[in-house]
Amino acid sequence: MSHETIEKEFMDYIKKMKSYNEAISLMFWDLRTGAPKKAVEQRSQTIGILSTEVFQMLVSDKMKEYITVLSEENTYSKLSAITQKSLELMNKEYKKNKVIPPEEYKEYVILQTKAESVWEEAKNTSDFQLFAPYLKKIVEFNKKLIGYWGYEGNKYNTLLEEYEPGMTVEILDKVFKQVRDHVVPLVQEINASTNKPETDFLFKAFPKEKQRQLSEFLLTEIGYDFEAGRLDETVHPFAIGINRGDVRVTTKYDEKDFRTAVFGTIHECGHAVYEQNISEDLEGTLLCTGTSMGIHESQSLFYENFIGRNVGFWERYYEKLNEYAPEQFKNISLEDFYRAINESKPSLIRIESDELTYALHVMVRYEIEKALFNDEIEVEDLPQVWNEKYQEYLGVTPPNDAQGVLQDVHWSGGSFGYFPSYALGYMYAAQLHQAMLKDLPNYDELVKTGDFESIKSWLTSNVHQYGKMKKPLEILTDVTGEGLNASYLINYLEEKYRRIYKL
Amino acid sequence: MSHETIEKEFMDYIKKMKSYNEAISLMFWDLRTGAPKKAVEQRSQTIGILSTEVFQMLVSDKMKEYITVLSEENTYSKLSAITQKSLELMNKEYKKNKVIPPEEYKEYVILQTKAESVWEEAKNTSDFQLFAPYLKKIVEFNKKLIGYWGYEGNKYNTLLEEYEPGMTVEILDKVFKQVRDHVVPLVQEINASTNKPETDFLFKAFPKEKQRQLSEFLLTEIGYDFEAGRLDETVHPFAIGINRGDVRVTTKYDEKDFRTAVFGTIHECGHAVYEQNISEDLEGTLLCTGTSMGIHESQSLFYENFIGRNVGFWERYYEKLNEYAPEQFKNISLEDFYRAINESKPSLIRIESDELTYALHVMVRYEIEKALFNDEIEVEDLPQVWNEKYQEYLGVTPPNDAQGVLQDVHWSGGSFGYFPSYALGYMYAAQLHQAMLKDLPNYDELVKTGDFESIKSWLTSNVHQYGKMKKPLEILTDVTGEGLNASYLINYLEEKYRRIYKL
Repeated sequence: MSHETIEKEFMDYIKKMKSYNEAISLMFWDLRTGAPKKAVEQRSQTIGILSTEVFQMLVSDKMKEYITVLSEENTYSKLSAITQKSLELMNKEYKKNKVIPPEEYKEYVILQTKAESVWEEAKNTSDFQLFAPYLKKIVEFNKKLIGYWGYEGNKYNTLLEEYEPGMTVEILDKVFKQVRDHVVPLVQEINASTNKPETDFLFKAFPKEKQRQLSEFLLTEIGYDFEAGRLDETVHPFAIGINRGDVRVTTKYDEKDFRTAVFGTIHECGHAVYEQNISEDLEGTLLCTGTSMGIHESQSLFYENFIGRNVGFWERYYEKLNEYAPEQFKNISLEDFYRAINESKPSLIRIESDELTYALHVMVRYEIEKALFNDEIEVEDLPQVWNEKYQEYLGVTPPNDAQGVLQDVHWSGGSFGYFPSYALGYMYAAQLHQAMLKDLPNYDELVKTGDFESIKSWLTSNVHQYGKMKKPLEILTDVTGEGLNASYLINYLEEKYRRIYKL
Repeated sequence: MSHETIEKEFMDYIKKMKSYNEAISLMFWDLRTGAPKKAVEQRSQTIGILSTEVFQMLVSDKMKEYITVLSEENTYSKLSAITQKSLELMNKEYKKNKVIPPEEYKEYVILQTKAESVWEEAKNTSDFQLFAPYLKKIVEFNKKLIGYWGYEGNKYNTLLEEYEPGMTVEILDKVFKQVRDHVVPLVQEINASTNKPETDFLFKAFPKEKQRQLSEFLLTEIGYDFEAGRLDETVHPFAIGINRGDVRVTTKYDEKDFRTAVFGTIHECGHAVYEQNISEDLEGTLLCTGTSMGIHESQSLFYENFIGRNVGFWERYYEKLNEYAPEQFKNISLEDFYRAINESKPSLIRIESDELTYALHVMVRYEIEKALFNDEIEVEDLPQVWNEKYQEYLGVTPPNDAQGVLQDVHWSGGSFGYFPSYALGYMYAAQLHQAMLKDLPNYDELVKTGDFESIKSWLTSNVHQYGKMKKPLEILTDVTGEGLNASYLINYLEEKYRRIYKL
C-alpha cells in the first residue's frame, strides 16, 4: 500500500473515533441540560459502550500497525503536519493505555464510580473517615500508574503531564512561590483595609429571565457565535465542543446574585470561543480541541477577567445592565459598582473565591497532591494538612471537612494533577494579555468601545487556531517569547487591587 | 462454547447496535430541535459514520455466524423468547440487506439525497418534469429490490412488508374498497349538507406560550410521562424513542390555529405512550420499538381521535381551554366547539385533511404505487392519474402539481409502501377501540372523568408492552379475535359524522 493510502486510512480511523466522541459529547450535554430522569440509566450504558469502543480503537492492533508503519522514517517525513501530530498524539495515548493491565483498569473504573458517591455522602455528613479508604485506593492506583508510565524528576510530574503536557513540579514550585509571596501579604493588607467596597446592592433580586437575556446579549457582544452554539442552564456551568460548529455553553442563574450568571457566562464564553475558532483543517481529527486544561482555562479567564472585569467593559455596559435591572443599581456609581464586583476576601470554598485569592486555593491542593505522591504525607493526614495550609495561605480555618478537604469532587475521580491548571490559566492569561498589548496597545480602548473582534482575532491567530497542533508551553513561548512567567499576573493583581482598595 | 455464552454474546452485539441507534436518535432529535446551524455538516457526517457502523454490524460475518449457530435446532429451542425473536429479526434483515450489491446501494443512497433536494425545488416551482427523472430512477431501484427479495402474490407486497409485515395487496384492496364505498358518499352528503358548523372562532390569535402550557397540561393529563420524555417545538412534529425512558415529542404552534398544536401534541403523545410502555425486558434490544408503522399510527390516532376528539374529552376540558384563551371561545357553546373541531371537508393536501377524508388521500397514493410496481402506469403518468383520482375520491382537482402529486416528500426518499400505514392506523384504532369496549364498556365515561390511566393500561397490556415481540396482525388477532376489519372504522365515522352534520 502506498503511504497516501495508509495515511488516509489512519485519518479515517481517527475520524471515526472523533465521531464517537461527538456522539458521546452530545449525550453528555443532553444529560446535563434536559434529558428526562428515566433516560439516565440506559444513556449511561450507551455512553459506556461508545467510550469502550473508542478506547478499544485506541489500543487495538490496528492502531499499533498504523503507528509502526507511519512512524518509519521514510514514510513519516512524507506525512502532512496534521497526520504527524495525530500520530504523535495516538502514539503517546496508545503507549500510556496499553501498559495498564485491563483488569486493573476495569477495577479502577468501578472504584471511581463508587468513590464519587461515597465522597458525596462523606461531604454531606462531613465525614472524612468515610471517604478515606476509597481515596487511599485511588491514590494507590495513581501511584501504580506512575510506576507503569515512569517519571522524570518528580513523581508528581507524571500526573501533571496528563493535564498540562510539559508542566513540572520544578516550574510550578517556582511560580507558585512567587505568586504566594506577593498575594498573601496583599490579601492581608486588603483584609486590614478600611476602604472596603459596599456590596449589598449586588444581592438584590434580579429575575432569572432578565439574567438570561442579559447573558445572551453579552455573549453576542463579546464574540460568541450563536450559529455555532447555544446557551442553556445547568447546575454546574460548562462549555462543551461537540464539533467545531457546535460549541455550547451553559450557565446558572442565581436570582440573589447576578454575578454568578454574568461572569460565569463570560467565563464559559472564553472556553467556547477557543473551540469555535480552531482551524477548519483540524475538523474531524482528535487535534480539534484545546491543547491543555491550562491553556483552555487561560482563555476563559482572559474573557472573564481581562474583558468582563475590566473597568472599560462596565463603562460600556453599565447603562445596559441597568436596562435589565432598572431598580437594582439606581443610586450606585459606576466606580462603586466596579469596586463591588471586584471585591476580594479570603473564603473557605474554592469555587466561591475571587480572582485574587483563587490561586491560593489551588496551591493548597497542589502542595497536598505533590506531598501525597512523594510519600511525604498519608491520606489520613489530609484534613489536618488542609486546615493548616488554609490558615497559612488564606488566614482561615475550615470549621469542618465538608467546607475543607471534602469540598471538591476531583480526587474521588482520581483527577490528581488537574488543580494546577486553574492557577496556570491565570498566569497564562496575564502573560498573553501582556503580549497582546504589544500588538494592541490600545487594548483598554478596544474593550471600552466594544471592539472585541480585534481581541478575538489576536487570540485566534496566536492560540485558538492551533488546537492541539502546538503544546501549551510551545504556544506560550511562540507568543510571548519566554516560558511561564508569574510576574505578569502578580503585577496585574497588585495594580488592580491596590487601586480598588486604595492601598 | 456453550449456547448460553453465544446467546449472551449475540445479545451484547445487538445491545451495541441499539446503543449506536440511541446515539443516532439523539443526534437526529437535536438537529431538529435546536442544534446550531454550523453543527449540521459535521453532525450529518457523524450520523453517517454511526449508521454505516450499524449496517456493517448487521451484514457482518459475525452476524452470519450468530445466525447460523443459534438457528441450529438443538440450540434454538433453548434460547429465551427474546433471543429467538431477535434472531428472527436479524435473520430477516441480514438476508434482505446482504443480497443488495454494496455499490448499487451506495449509488441509491446518493440518489436519495439528491432526489430530496430536487423534489423540494420541483415542489417550490410546481415542476413535475424536474423531479420525474429522479423519481424514475428511484422506482427502478425499488423494482430491483423486489427482484432481489422476491415476492408472493403481488409485487407491491414486498414493499408493503417493509412497513407493515404481513400486509398484502389482497387485504388492502378489500378494506380500502369497503372504506371508499362508505366514505365517498358520506363526504358527498356532508358537502351538500346545510348544517355545516361555524368555524371562524377557531382561527383567532392564541398566543404561542399559552399553547405550550396547554400542550404540557394535556400531555400530563392523558398519560405522557414527563419523567421519560420532554416536549419541544419543531417545524414538523414527531415523536422519537431514544430509549425506553426517553421518548420525546415535539409540536408546532400556529398562533392562528390552535388545533395544530393541541391535536398534534395529542397525536404524538399516542406514539410516545406506546414506546414509553414497552416491556422493560426488551430494553437494550432491537425489539424495543413499535412493531410496525401501522400499529404505531393506530396508537397516535387512538389518542388523537378516540380521546382528543371525543365529545367527553371536551366536556371535561372545555373550561380549562377557556382559561388558556379567555376571549376566543367566549360565546361558543361546547356543542358548537365540538362540531367545529370535527369539521370535515375535502381538501387537496393530505396533512391538512380531517379524520373522515384522510383515508381517501392515502388510497390515491396506494393505487398509484400499486400500479407503478405492477407496470400498469409510468412515472410520466403520475400527475394525470393523481388528479383523476383526487376528483374521483375527493371531488377536487389540484390546480397544479405542487398541490397535487408533488406534495409529499416520501417518494423522493424511496418510501414506497409507507402510505397505507396511515390508513391502517385508522382501521386498527377503530378495531382496537371496539375490542376495548368489551373490557371497558364505560369507555366514554372514563374519558369524561379523565381516567386515562385505565385506557392506557388496556393499551399497554394489549399492545404497547410487546414491542416487536408480536407482528402487527398478530397483535390485532390476539386482541380482537379477528383479522383486519374495516367495518369498525366505517361504523364509527358514519355514526360520528351523521351526528355532527345532522344527516
